[in-house]
Amino acid sequence: MKILVVNCGSSSLKYQLFDMTDESVLAKGLVERIGIEGARIKHTKTGMDAVIRNTEISNHKVAFKVVVEALLDDSHGALKSLDELSAVGHRVVHAGEKYAGSVMITQDVIDALEECVPLAPLHNPANLMGIYAVTEALPNIPQVGVFDTAFHQTMPGYAYMYGVPYHYYEKYKVRRYGFHGTSHFYVSRRAAEILGKPVESLNIVTCHMGNGSSIAAVKGGKSVDTSMGFSPLPGVIMGTRSGDVDPLLVSFLSDQEGIDNKAMSHVLNKESGLLGISGVSSDLRDIEEAADAGNQRARLAEDMLYYGVRKYIGSYAAAMGGMDVLVFTAGIGENSGRAREGICTGLEFMGVKLDLEKNNVRGKERIISTDDSRVKVLVVPTDEELVIARDTKKIAMDRN
Amino acid sequence: MKILVVNCGSSSLKYQLFDMTDESVLAKGLVERIGIEGARIKHTKTGMDAVIRNTEISNHKVAFKVVVEALLDDSHGALKSLDELSAVGHRVVHAGEKYAGSVMITQDVIDALEECVPLAPLHNPANLMGIYAVTEALPNIPQVGVFDTAFHQTMPGYAYMYGVPYHYYEKYKVRRYGFHGTSHFYVSRRAAEILGKPVESLNIVTCHMGNGSSIAAVKGGKSVDTSMGFSPLPGVIMGTRSGDVDPLLVSFLSDQEGIDNKAMSHVLNKESGLLGISGVSSDLRDIEEAADAGNQRARLAEDMLYYGVRKYIGSYAAAMGGMDVLVFTAGIGENSGRAREGICTGLEFMGVKLDLEKNNVRGKERIISTDDSRVKVLVVPTDEELVIARDTKKIAMDRN
Repeated sequence: MKILVVNCGSSSLKYQLFDMTDESVLAKGLVERIGIEGARIKHTKTGMDAVIRNTEISNHKVAFKVVVEALLDDSHGALKSLDELSAVGHRVVHAGEKYAGSVMITQDVIDALEECVPLAPLHNPANLMGIYAVTEALPNIPQVGVFDTAFHQTMPGYAYMYGVPYHYYEKYKVRRYGFHGTSHFYVSRRAAEILGKPVESLNIVTCHMGNGSSIAAVKGGKSVDTSMGFSPLPGVIMGTRSGDVDPLLVSFLSDQEGIDNKAMSHVLNKESGLLGISGVSSDLRDIEEAADAGNQRARLAEDMLYYGVRKYIGSYAAAMGGMDVLVFTAGIGENSGRAREGICTGLEFMGVKLDLEKNNVRGKERIISTDDSRVKVLVVPTDEELVIARDTKKIAMDRN
Repeated sequence: MKILVVNCGSSSLKYQLFDMTDESVLAKGLVERIGIEGARIKHTKTGMDAVIRNTEISNHKVAFKVVVEALLDDSHGALKSLDELSAVGHRVVHAGEKYAGSVMITQDVIDALEECVPLAPLHNPANLMGIYAVTEALPNIPQVGVFDTAFHQTMPGYAYMYGVPYHYYEKYKVRRYGFHGTSHFYVSRRAAEILGKPVESLNIVTCHMGNGSSIAAVKGGKSVDTSMGFSPLPGVIMGTRSGDVDPLLVSFLSDQEGIDNKAMSHVLNKESGLLGISGVSSDLRDIEEAADAGNQRARLAEDMLYYGVRKYIGSYAAAMGGMDVLVFTAGIGENSGRAREGICTGLEFMGVKLDLEKNNVRGKERIISTDDSRVKVLVVPTDEELVIARDTKKIAMDRN
């Protein structure tokens, strides 16, 4: 059973082809600069070098055709015929309160996701374009939607509600949704497996730290709180996103600068975070380098990140009545031992003891706490595509 | 040595007259509805019943004259002559980054406080009106400014900076300031005294919970973080203030509702919080009652408050590398055993053990944790006026 996983951004299309008999990846790739000059596909058949092809790609439908061509190619393809493909799984960012799990994509689902566009104006339209592109190219294939918000739908009301007038929740569904759900789900399960304990017995804090970052409290296997909110802006400081800020600071700045909400949103999403503070880069590797070279604003950005994550860990331990496991994942979480050390310093009082030697690891599953650490600290590389492939397989098979 | 403490709001003037030889309160009172129909002064000489006088009070200068008359009154006054008064201390909300402690009010100080008006548009103008009123009535008396923001000026940069572009900090001084500093200062000192330990040796979390609420992390006697921010809006849910919200939720709502920043600010400050969620009241006593009667939104508001404070406590313990002392103060913190219990439930893993019998206390200094609780939990009624009087005495005497 072969399953294709598709993840569309506004000008990109990422894909991975799985053989679900053994969950192996047959091929993967990325189409970039869709609708922009200089579009290209980078395709890799497992075991072979990447193939890059530059070609005009005006929209996501064209992009998907280019992907299909790559997958069927005689030399670097991975499918003889599209009939081998059993289903397509889509990563979709926002499903509102509608779906607490993955679902077969029907017209009703598409309508519900269109309704969520105001809640995720940057993401859902792209995800929907991916669905439309696949529907046009492969009208009869089962498609499954896997939602970033779904895993967090188990949050209790007192965790997801904001202190704004209640009728705004009734009218517009303004509440905390949370994102990266597939990742928090995957790494919390995987951590429990590695520790040989049922996830139901554990209080886990998962730190998904990449260009976008979110922290989640996973109690007994369920998400009970997470740092992103109504939008993917709040929480800890990110590459170019501000994280938590006083809302009145935002209106103060837009008044002072004479710019509107849309422009302020751009500032908060694209010009803030590690980049905005350091003035150096949105990439933590550059920040670390600059900080070591004496750049004080880079040092500040780094300290803000570690401090902010540390505070979220403390608050989620309090939210769950204690913490048994702390997991780091995604670009920063998997690769920066320095970040993990910076974050854990000061958490000794909660039973966190990092083993600095074990912490010297990049992108591999590993327990990085000392043997006598009450809280187990782990690096678990995330695999959102695998979760999407598994859900897609399950739902597409249930259907048959 | 007699000192008058003055605390001006936009339509109110609170005052307390101290005899600093023994720190006793000789008289206190409140002028309400300044500039509004139905103005009145309620004045109480210690040991006597309150006297209420209704009179037209068009502005703060008139209000202060009415206060002086009350203080000099033959029957319920507390001064024979204004010459007995050594100094006046003012509560001032916002001193920006300029002052990390109390100061003698000079023209330079007034200029600096005027500069802070954009940072505290609701508070600083009223505080300045108080200063102008006293200056006109008592041109030669020393006046001291005691600032809500001053105690928090010890926060490190990584705690007070927001993840917005750095040039906004340089240009507009946008950063976390924090408020209720006088209260956090007072109760952290008092808690250390009650416990018989030097405040320098303790990690204290102070919960000032009233109509406005803020939580602070006080490490070694210094504020290292606090939940209010650039403005007094963020942090935990308050009587009518929202507390922390996703900034993009705010712009989403103003776009959807077609209202501007000023109107949204009013919603967030005056129509949100416990009132906005419950639809019942901004007063926790009413919320508790309604929750007990089965009102689900009142229950939600109550749970949001407890949960939010509990998370801040956890995050500040993490920020300080542990917590030794937890202090509750102000209207809710001093009086609601139910709130204190609700907040502490789930913090057992951090060494918090509440003694439910001792917790049954209102408005009195008391240790409410069990004898074997690793973290000492205390109720400490706040006394911001006393701190202002002490600072005023010290600074006015230093001057002579």
